[in-house]
Amino acid sequence: MTESSLDSLEPLVSLCKRRGYIFQSSEIYGGLNGFWDYGPLGVELRRRIFDSWWSMMVERREDVVGMDASIINHPRVWEASGHVASFYDMMVDCRGCNRRFRLDHMIQDALDNDTLDAIFPDRDNSVPPAEGEVPTKCPACGGELTEPRQFGLMFETHVGAATDSKSIAYLRPETAQAIFVNFKNVQMSSRLKVPFGIAQVGKAFRNEVTPRNFTFRSREFEQMEMEFFVHPDEERKWFDYWVDARHEWYEHLGVNPDRLRRRDHGGDELAHYASYTTDVEYQFPFGWAELEGIANRGNFDLTQHGEHSGKDQAYFDPTRNEKYVPSVIETSAGLDRTLLTVLADAFAIDRVGEEERTVLRLAPHIAPRQVAVFPLSKKLAEPARKLTDDLQRRFHAIYDDSGSIGKRYRREDEVGTPYCVTFDFDSLEDGAATVRDRDTTDQERVALDSLPAYLDERIRK
Amino acid sequence: MTESSLDSLEPLVSLCKRRGYIFQSSEIYGGLNGFWDYGPLGVELRRRIFDSWWSMMVERREDVVGMDASIINHPRVWEASGHVASFYDMMVDCRGCNRRFRLDHMIQDALDNDTLDAIFPDRDNSVPPAEGEVPTKCPACGGELTEPRQFGLMFETHVGAATDSKSIAYLRPETAQAIFVNFKNVQMSSRLKVPFGIAQVGKAFRNEVTPRNFTFRSREFEQMEMEFFVHPDEERKWFDYWVDARHEWYEHLGVNPDRLRRRDHGGDELAHYASYTTDVEYQFPFGWAELEGIANRGNFDLTQHGEHSGKDQAYFDPTRNEKYVPSVIETSAGLDRTLLTVLADAFAIDRVGEEERTVLRLAPHIAPRQVAVFPLSKKLAEPARKLTDDLQRRFHAIYDDSGSIGKRYRREDEVGTPYCVTFDFDSLEDGAATVRDRDTTDQERVALDSLPAYLDERIRK
Repeated sequence: MTESSLDSLEPLVSLCKRRGYIFQSSEIYGGLNGFWDYGPLGVELRRRIFDSWWSMMVERREDVVGMDASIINHPRVWEASGHVASFYDMMVDCRGCNRRFRLDHMIQDALDNDTLDAIFPDRDNSVPPAEGEVPTKCPACGGELTEPRQFGLMFETHVGAATDSKSIAYLRPETAQAIFVNFKNVQMSSRLKVPFGIAQVGKAFRNEVTPRNFTFRSREFEQMEMEFFVHPDEERKWFDYWVDARHEWYEHLGVNPDRLRRRDHGGDELAHYASYTTDVEYQFPFGWAELEGIANRGNFDLTQHGEHSGKDQAYFDPTRNEKYVPSVIETSAGLDRTLLTVLADAFAIDRVGEEERTVLRLAPHIAPRQVAVFPLSKKLAEPARKLTDDLQRRFHAIYDDSGSIGKRYRREDEVGTPYCVTFDFDSLEDGAATVRDRDTTDQERVALDSLPAYLDERIRK
Repeated sequence: MTESSLDSLEPLVSLCKRRGYIFQSSEIYGGLNGFWDYGPLGVELRRRIFDSWWSMMVERREDVVGMDASIINHPRVWEASGHVASFYDMMVDCRGCNRRFRLDHMIQDALDNDTLDAIFPDRDNSVPPAEGEVPTKCPACGGELTEPRQFGLMFETHVGAATDSKSIAYLRPETAQAIFVNFKNVQMSSRLKVPFGIAQVGKAFRNEVTPRNFTFRSREFEQMEMEFFVHPDEERKWFDYWVDARHEWYEHLGVNPDRLRRRDHGGDELAHYASYTTDVEYQFPFGWAELEGIANRGNFDLTQHGEHSGKDQAYFDPTRNEKYVPSVIETSAGLDRTLLTVLADAFAIDRVGEEERTVLRLAPHIAPRQVAVFPLSKKLAEPARKLTDDLQRRFHAIYDDSGSIGKRYRREDEVGTPYCVTFDFDSLEDGAATVRDRDTTDQERVALDSLPAYLDERIRK
C-alpha cells in the first residue's frame, strides 16, 4: 500500500462538503468569506474535541473550573485589555485593481514564492526586507499601492436603541478577558485557592483582512482558553507544566507527533501582555502554523481591570499569608483549528488492490461515527438492525443497506469510520460477523456476543 | 416541613451569584443590560441540559442529524426570511424622563398592575385597550410619550474593511435560518429521506428594548432548535408528535408538571410564517411565559430561500415518486430559559428543625454536582479523599473538609447537591458512611462497597 497525504487543502475541502463535515456559510447565496458551517459529521467531531478538552482541563482536575460568558461584553473591558487601542492589522490597497492586502501576508507570500521583485521593484531583494520596509507594487496587477493603514480587528455593533458612541459594543476577539473580569466572582463563589484555573470554550470574532486556508483563519471561530492563576514566584514552573500538557493533548487526539512542534516566541513577536510564549504548531500543507499559544501574561490583565474598574483584583493567599495580584499562565487553543488539524492529519489516499481510495484515519475514540453495520442483503435487514441497535448503546453506530459492500466501505472510509461490520447469511448460522478495519482493510470474523468487547478494546481510550 | 417556593426572582438571582451559577456580564464595570455570564456551576448545568436535549433530539434518533452554523450569515439570508423587513418591536420614548418602553410591555404591565389610568388618562379603562390604541403618558414620570416607532431587533455589524451598506451583516436572531439554508447540503451529504430533521444549538442575538426577568429575556441567548422536514400531507401528524415529545422533555428534567402547560396561539399572534403554533409555558414568579414554541412553518422558508437564491429547494421523494418542497415542523427552545426554569422550579426555602434553609431541589441526573464527600475531621482526610476519587469516576463529586458538617450541608443544599456522604471515625471500623438526602434530610448508613450502586440507582435516569 503506497500512501499519500495532503499537499494542498483542496481535496479535504471537497471531502468535507461531500460527506457533511464542513460547508461554506450561506453557500446558496454565494458564501460569506471567512465563515463556515459544520454539517452532521462536523458537529459530532466538534463535540468529541470539545469533550476531550473539557474532560482534560476541567472535569478531571480539582484545580480548574469552567465558565461561559457572553460574547458581547461591556466596551470598557476592551479598553482595559488594550484591544481598542492596539488590536489591528496593517493593510494596503491597490490603486489599480482595488484589491486589499494584509501587509505582513503580502510580504510573507512574496518571500515564500520568491517574488519579492514584483512588490519591491526598487530594492536589492537578495536580502529579505527589514521591519518597516513597505512594498510599492501590487502582487496581483502591478499597480501602485496605498500607504499602509490600521485596520481594526474587532467587529463593532450597537446595543440598545441609540447608535451613538455610548452604545458601541464589540464582538469579543478572545474569550480570555471575560475570565479576567470574572476572576473575583468565580474565585469567591467556588472558594478556590491559588493556584487554580478558569476554563472557557466559546465563539470569538476577528474581522480578518484576508481569511484563508479553509477554516484555519476565519472571522468567526471557537476558542478553548484556560487562565491559570499562580503566585508570581511560580510562573515558570506552571508555564512549563502547561506547555507539556497541552502539547500532549494533540498527540492524545491521534495527531502525528512528527507534524507537531513547539516554537518559542522571539522578543519581537511577543504580545504586549506576555513575557514569554510558546506555540504548539502543526505542519499543514501550507506550512507550519500555530495551533495553540501558551503564554505567561503576568499580572497585566488583572492589574488593568483593577485600575479601569476601580475594583481591587488582588487576592489574599491564606497559605502564604500574603496579598498579591496573581500571575496568569494562559493556554489558548482553537476548536476549529484543532478540528482542521485532526482532519488534515487523518486524510490519506492509498490503494486497495487496484483501486484508489480516500480515507480519513481518525483516531477511533474521536471519530464521529465509530461503527457501520452492513447487511449483505436486504433480506438480512432485521437481524442487522437488531445488531445496530445493540451497538448504538455503546458506540456511534449506523445501519446502511444501500449499494454494494465495496461502495459502502468507500463511503465509510471517507467518513473515517474505523470499523465496518458485515452481517451475512453465514451470520445466521455461526452467530458471527465480519469486521473490517478501516486502516489495514483486514477482515476478521468475530462472534456477535464478543463484538462489543472487541470494538470497545479498539475504540476507547 | 413547611415550604415556600419563589414569589419573585430576587432570592434566586442572589443565590446564583453567591454559588457561581450566573453573574451579571462585566459586573465590575457596572454590568451590561441584557447580558449574563455563567459561572462554574452554571456552565455545568448548561452542559447537562444541552446533553439531554442533544441525546433526545439527535443521538437517540436515526431521523435527525445535527449541525452547527456560523452566527454571522450572508445578509441575504435575512432578507429572504423576512427579518430585515419585519423583525422589529414598537417602542415609545418619554419626552420628560427620556425612558424608553416597549409598547406591548407597557400596556401589559399596566393591565397586570391595574394602572391603565396612569398611561391612558383620557379613556374608559374599565375595558382593556384594543389593538392600535396608544398610551399617552409615561408610567414612570407621567410625562408625554412620543408616537410609537419601529425598533429593529437585529444587531448590525460590518464584515470586511469597508463600512458601507454592502458590508452590512447581522448577528443571527435565530438559529433556524441556517438550517434552511443548509437543507440541501445536509440532506445530500447525509443521504437523508423525508421525514427527517436537522437540529442545532447555538447563540442568537436580539437587541431587545427592555431585557427583563433575569435571564428570561436577554439580548444574547442560546437556542436549541430542530427543523423537521415532512411531506405536506403529514404536517398535523408530526406537529402533534413533537408537541407531545417536547412537553415531556421538561418533565424529564424534573420540572413540576403542574407548572407546565400548553397554549395554542390564536390567529392574531401567529408569526407570518406559521399556520399553527403551540407554546409550552412555565409558571414563573412573574407569570406564565413561553419556554418553547412548536410551529408548523409550512414550506415558507424553503420557498423563500429557493426564490431569493435561485437554487431550487424542492426535494424528490423516492418513496412517493414525487417532487415537492417539504413542510417544516419546528421545535424552538431556549437553553437559558430552560436553565432558568430548572433553577426557579428547584428553588425552595424550608425549615430543618429550628433552622431555615435555602435548597435547590434539582433532579439528581442534571445536578451539576451530584455528590459531596465530607470527612468528619481533617484527620480522616486521606480515606475520605480516596472515597471521593472513587466516586469521581462515576459521578460529579467533590471533597470538602471546611467548616462544620451543618455548614457544609447548607452549602450543598444551595448548590443543589442531592447527596452528601460523611466519612466519620466509625467508617474506619464498619466500612460504611452516612448518606444524607438533600430533599428529605434523612440520613442512612451505607456500606462503602455498595455506595456506588446506591447512588447510581438514585441519580441516573
